[in-house]
Amino acid sequence: MRKPHFDVCLSPELLPLYDLTGKVVVVVDVLRATSCMVTALAHGVARLLPVATLDECRAWQARGLVAAAERDGQRAEGFDLGNSPFEYQRPDLRGQTIAMTTTNGTLALTRSRAAAQVLAGAFLNLGAVADYLRTAQRDVLVVCAGWKGMVNLEDSLFGGALAARLADSFTFETDAPLLAQTAYEAAAPDLVAYLNQSAHVARLHRLGVTDDIPFCLTPDRYEVIPVLEGEGLVRLER
Amino acid sequence: MRKPHFDVCLSPELLPLYDLTGKVVVVVDVLRATSCMVTALAHGVARLLPVATLDECRAWQARGLVAAAERDGQRAEGFDLGNSPFEYQRPDLRGQTIAMTTTNGTLALTRSRAAAQVLAGAFLNLGAVADYLRTAQRDVLVVCAGWKGMVNLEDSLFGGALAARLADSFTFETDAPLLAQTAYEAAAPDLVAYLNQSAHVARLHRLGVTDDIPFCLTPDRYEVIPVLEGEGLVRLER
Repeated sequence: MRKPHFDVCLSPELLPLYDLTGKVVVVVDVLRATSCMVTALAHGVARLLPVATLDECRAWQARGLVAAAERDGQRAEGFDLGNSPFEYQRPDLRGQTIAMTTTNGTLALTRSRAAAQVLAGAFLNLGAVADYLRTAQRDVLVVCAGWKGMVNLEDSLFGGALAARLADSFTFETDAPLLAQTAYEAAAPDLVAYLNQSAHVARLHRLGVTDDIPFCLTPDRYEVIPVLEGEGLVRLER
Repeated sequence: MRKPHFDVCLSPELLPLYDLTGKVVVVVDVLRATSCMVTALAHGVARLLPVATLDECRAWQARGLVAAAERDGQRAEGFDLGNSPFEYQRPDLRGQTIAMTTTNGTLALTRSRAAAQVLAGAFLNLGAVADYLRTAQRDVLVVCAGWKGMVNLEDSLFGGALAARLADSFTFETDAPLLAQTAYEAAAPDLVAYLNQSAHVARLHRLGVTDDIPFCLTPDRYEVIPVLEGEGLVRLER
């Protein structure tokens, strides 16, 4: 039996090179969009509605949804929530739908819609995603949200972590999974210390965001996998 | 004094994200275009003329130039040379101009023309490139030729090797240099064995190309740095 393929697209700008037909796409924006999505659904949020612009997000807010918006690492003015996973644990959000726009993560989701299935991955649900993909036996593409088109460290390392967990049951047809896996395995002994060197962590530190980072880098905290259903992300039923 | 920036563009498809103005670009296609270029100039070839298409290359051949053409790892039919660095050591090529077209390397060169200076780098001239860049004190962008737009291992690792050598005298503004450097440092103890896992090495092995790979991965063999002058690459005078 042919092993399914596993690949990593290190920036959404490279997506046109990949055929998404029939594939499971795992979108990752470790700091912090997909970490927030996993946390929200794990804490009882019913549905997340990724939207591209602040205006769209505002429109949903006007229609009664909880609205979350981040730009350049900060909560955008006038919105209910920003982009810290701690905000998404509030008990009053249980059962709610949240409209959500972020600098990079929501764009990566939108661009991946041609795939057979679109999941949101993060270190927080790494093990659950790996287990599911091993069972699903379909070709997989990890789409790294990056930073404004640029390759970033944390999303690449997530791709590498997933590659490491799936290397036995998938084939790598291109080099990006190996590059990411090699970097991940070198960084894994102290992921938090390693990522202190990253441009985005430095950016978040300048904004006073510190606790989010070790939280977002904790593997296997949640079993929840967000899956795109229609326009929104809900818990994948397994 | 501000330290100059060092960055790595992991695929030519990402080049539109970078401002090349005032920068030194180091184009790298380890397997094998830039390794051939370095070898050729080190062995007395006068000038290399990178061209985009087989037709252009044929036209130069008709006008009396030596013509080198590679597509998908093989010498294209009807040309004098392919893409093995051993071919570029022939004594009869001394003083000649070679028109040259390759799958990835020549495109990366063409797309980098907006830079202040365009160099060709390879493991073969790694130390010479690093020494020159340290002296030049300008912002540097390594442009990885990749494979048909995809990120590849060997060019990324060259970016990482150069990052490792320049980390003390340059600043990294984005994450790609760190990602590449981490992977390079993990792979460095046995670069040839590590790169046996790469998609392109597997492709070359299938074509019977084996000796080229350890040769192309030998660091610091030559002191020559090819530099783009007008339409052609010549030896950088230092």
